[in-house]
Amino acid sequence: MQLKPVIGNTPEERLGNLGLELPPVPEAVADYVTHTQIGPIVYTSGMLPWIAGDLKFRGKMGAELTVQQGYQAFQLSALNGLSLLRSIIGDLNRIKRIHRLEGTGGATPDFFDMPIALNGASHLINTVFGEKGAHSRMIYSNPSMPIDCATLLVFWAEIEE
Amino acid sequence: MQLKPVIGNTPEERLGNLGLELPPVPEAVADYVTHTQIGPIVYTSGMLPWIAGDLKFRGKMGAELTVQQGYQAFQLSALNGLSLLRSIIGDLNRIKRIHRLEGTGGATPDFFDMPIALNGASHLINTVFGEKGAHSRMIYSNPSMPIDCATLLVFWAEIEE
Amino acid sequence: MQLKPVIGNTPEERLGNLGLELPPVPEAVADYVTHTQIGPIVYTSGMLPWIAGDLKFRGKMGAELTVQQGYQAFQLSALNGLSLLRSIIGDLNRIKRIHRLEGTGGATPDFFDMPIALNGASHLINTVFGEKGAHSRMIYSNPSMPIDCATLLVFWAEIEE
Repeated sequence: MQLKPVIGNTPEERLGNLGLELPPVPEAVADYVTHTQIGPIVYTSGMLPWIAGDLKFRGKMGAELTVQQGYQAFQLSALNGLSLLRSIIGDLNRIKRIHRLEGTGGATPDFFDMPIALNGASHLINTVFGEKGAHSRMIYSNPSMPIDCATLLVFWAEIEE
Repeated sequence: MQLKPVIGNTPEERLGNLGLELPPVPEAVADYVTHTQIGPIVYTSGMLPWIAGDLKFRGKMGAELTVQQGYQAFQLSALNGLSLLRSIIGDLNRIKRIHRLEGTGGATPDFFDMPIALNGASHLINTVFGEKGAHSRMIYSNPSMPIDCATLLVFWAEIEE
Repeated sequence: MQLKPVIGNTPEERLGNLGLELPPVPEAVADYVTHTQIGPIVYTSGMLPWIAGDLKFRGKMGAELTVQQGYQAFQLSALNGLSLLRSIIGDLNRIKRIHRLEGTGGATPDFFDMPIALNGASHLINTVFGEKGAHSRMIYSNPSMPIDCATLLVFWAEIEE
């Protein structure tokens, strides 16, 4: 799996040229906030694969979900993260660097392909942000997930000051 | 589940008005330290739900533990974190912001209510710290936990300089 | 389990006196980078227990792997992290502090000894870095791991400027 190469001068243009749209700004599902900022770095809470509160990917990889669906779920989690970041800073062009992605997916004990699934987020960030999207990452699989969502994605994003 | 609203001018007063007491300062259970500080931010190790080394919540949510017990376990993990923070800075009033809580709970593959359980920590922090307690968070469920503890809670807390 | 005490004036000397060698610099296994740096802190991606891409520990603790093998796997993950850090900064003596280790291991639902396994990393860092190695840590167990590796280890390392 890969994304097609795209042209575009800004992250928003490249997103558009990929044919992708940002979902509505995600809201916190419990008594916390969607992000906090320490110096120039925004740390998000876990981003779910939903559109306006409608969960699009539910279940575990290795059981109800294929790795391809896991890839799509992480991509949608990433789009939620970008929607949140845009709402905070006004324009994705103000992102100086996506430093880190931490991805957690629901999985059975015999599912070993989470890195391929998490590429759904990594490919998107690399394609949309180029060198500014070069990110470290960490992967977790979990036996069960909040409200049975397929994926949770955390961003560490540096904002231009 | 929720905590009753409380009055009080300081975090310690509000804790007292909730009828809650901080447990003894938790110790590391292996060859590491309980926290490290980078600039003004204290990052704790995982806080267990114990009182003076006596583990109060053991087992997994979805099996031995109900979500209500998970809520109580995360609350006790949070109280251990506050006890640790007070021992570092002398007075909880010197906390400028609780930026982030990362909660991990033992769970079966069919337990999807970890956000409700983690509210045990979030409600406490929100009630005791008000706006200074507005935190991002991340949730993990794990198939097995250190010494079968129910919950582990990590704090990112900013200290007044 | 413990490491024998060693003498030596530098981290590299102490590693040598332990009889341990750093593996080749690990490469990213997918479309991400092995680390990112924010200010003086290097945050690594998850380090696997391999030598030049050959995975030495595969499977789950509680099933295919004993806790002793988990200890060895986390030690090898830590050696990969040190190899990476040396490649970034040239000399391990330029590490000012290892602030944090986050360890994730594959485990069955009845394996509660992950802290003992993670000591494989903690003992190494404590022995090689002394006070500069005093680290906070967090432990996760996961039902399944990327490419069925036994362990993943994240470093937060402060570099002398």
